Amino acid sequence: MVIDGLQYANWSEKIFRQFREGGVDAVHVTIAYHENFRETVLNFEQWNRWFERHPDLIVQARTADDVRAAKAAGCTAIIFGFQNPSAIEDDIGLVEITHTLGARFMQLSYNNQSLLATGCYEAEDPGITRMGRQVIKEMNRVGMVVDMSHSAERSTLEAIEISARPIAITHANPAVWHPALRNKSDTVLKALAESGGMLGCSLYPHHLKDKSDCTLESFCTMIARTAETMGVERIGIGSDLCQDHPDSIVTWMRVGRWTREMDYGEGSAAAPGFPPMPDFFADNRDFPNIATGLAAAGFSADEVALVMGGNWLRFFEESFGPAPAAPAEVRPMSVA
Amino acid sequence: MVIDGLQYANWSEKIFRQFREGGVDAVHVTIAYHENFRETVLNFEQWNRWFERHPDLIVQARTADDVRAAKAAGCTAIIFGFQNPSAIEDDIGLVEITHTLGARFMQLSYNNQSLLATGCYEAEDPGITRMGRQVIKEMNRVGMVVDMSHSAERSTLEAIEISARPIAITHANPAVWHPALRNKSDTVLKALAESGGMLGCSLYPHHLKDKSDCTLESFCTMIARTAETMGVERIGIGSDLCQDHPDSIVTWMRVGRWTREMDYGEGSAAAPGFPPMPDFFADNRDFPNIATGLAAAGFSADEVALVMGGNWLRFFEESFGPAPAAPAEVRPMSVA
Repeated sequence: MVIDGLQYANWSEKIFRQFREGGVDAVHVTIAYHENFRETVLNFEQWNRWFERHPDLIVQARTADDVRAAKAAGCTAIIFGFQNPSAIEDDIGLVEITHTLGARFMQLSYNNQSLLATGCYEAEDPGITRMGRQVIKEMNRVGMVVDMSHSAERSTLEAIEISARPIAITHANPAVWHPALRNKSDTVLKALAESGGMLGCSLYPHHLKDKSDCTLESFCTMIARTAETMGVERIGIGSDLCQDHPDSIVTWMRVGRWTREMDYGEGSAAAPGFPPMPDFFADNRDFPNIATGLAAAGFSADEVALVMGGNWLRFFEESFGPAPAAPAEVRPMSVA
Repeated sequence: MVIDGLQYANWSEKIFRQFREGGVDAVHVTIAYHENFRETVLNFEQWNRWFERHPDLIVQARTADDVRAAKAAGCTAIIFGFQNPSAIEDDIGLVEITHTLGARFMQLSYNNQSLLATGCYEAEDPGITRMGRQVIKEMNRVGMVVDMSHSAERSTLEAIEISARPIAITHANPAVWHPALRNKSDTVLKALAESGGMLGCSLYPHHLKDKSDCTLESFCTMIARTAETMGVERIGIGSDLCQDHPDSIVTWMRVGRWTREMDYGEGSAAAPGFPPMPDFFADNRDFPNIATGLAAAGFSADEVALVMGGNWLRFFEESFGPAPAAPAEVRPMSVA
């Protein structure tokens, strides 16, 4: 089972075929950055057209069982998620609505302050807001995973604590390996692991040591070191593959509608576009390279299987359904 | 000139006639709490219908000159504003659009954290966000007043500092007089006054010492004490009159769409509705009482005129137009 914890490509039949060539059984696909609810629904509609057109290649998944069925049918399962809570606007009722439509992950913030939590580029991080506490409770209830990939440290630690169900950081790496603002401190990674959460290790060059020049060995050794502190069951891949997009899309991701000035985020005025992917992971066809690299870094075959997808599948199983009902209150029997 | 710095009534011909009976020349009217852009446009539409139906009583104002013209015509000028940035959603371009439609005030937050600033009921206040800094710059450019009535302390102090033009607290009182979360510290009031901003003193019972039992003397003595520290030119009235609304409206104001649980805000489970207004100010017909009370509290006739409306008119004059163009850069003449 091979599962990618996050992609945001310029989707096409070519990429769907590359899923199959790379043996990718399931992908968490971003369908909203700054899109509001109505715009996000348009993105669901677009995916409905792709599912109609390519039933031999892709199928929507809402549960872990859907992922297993897709694999058995030789298709790639698509699981939807949002990188920002823009899709629910200011409306807690949209958590359940978007879950019904198929959303299974939502980041509480994307670089900036949101109504729920703080993003990693803000100067200050006050933690989870009043609305954020309510929304986490609602996400827990319906079975939508709290994702803190682009959130700031204190907000992330509070989300781990407040959420009654394990959360995910679908695409980031340890800051100790590469100290980018988007990568995560050991404090966060330990709290994430202790709470039963998941880290998806990212292949986006700004999150990699030596960026586009990062080697497979360096990446897989990082995963081995991280497994020592978090436990191998807590780690998967979240490639953050942004294939075939024009650079205007990275501008949308960074700037949305929140500023009239350019904000280069992880890039710079000199390098404003998408960075080139590392040699060992150009696209979905290169997932076997990662499995090979993990084995070379000392992981057993069973461990490689966990990191390549087994862990995500278990996490999906635990996370995508409604919260287990609270146990019925035990009352003393009436003597009457 | 009598100007009220904020009202949010359940508008009707009865209230428009009470404006005239009370000699009210202009009112800053809230047309959005949690409404998004499209819903706010519906509220502009509703007002267009009222302006058509009651041209003898009310008229829209976009400038201080419009207010003077309304007074000359025996009408009450209506100036629009938002109590939350929900109306601009996540889109900085909507600042100019809503200004074109007539919005002249916007609160950067309403009790909770917004995309721009923190509200006074959050546990933590990290100050103005990245988007907040951009939006203040845009509000300064087009001539929309930053209003921090429902914002938290640090966010308010930073807004005063960041804004290139004076800001307003349209409806609140000094916390030293009545220590409600919504009232303002001396630190805030001094910074507001030094920057040329305005305080509208509120008649909403939760902001009053002794609440609904507050006396005219107590209210006007508070204004006299505040004038000693802020200067009489910095003070107006912002009644926060919420006349004729059912209690369901105060629930909307407090809860919006951000929580599935009840939040009583300034009220309580025992007293969830709108509190009764103080005896001396039941509705717009009672504005003359305030003028009388101010004179009794020691204000001269000229000072009473400033507090009752002259200060707001001057502030509108300075605030509602585009920012003065930056002086052309002086370059050394070329010798060639």
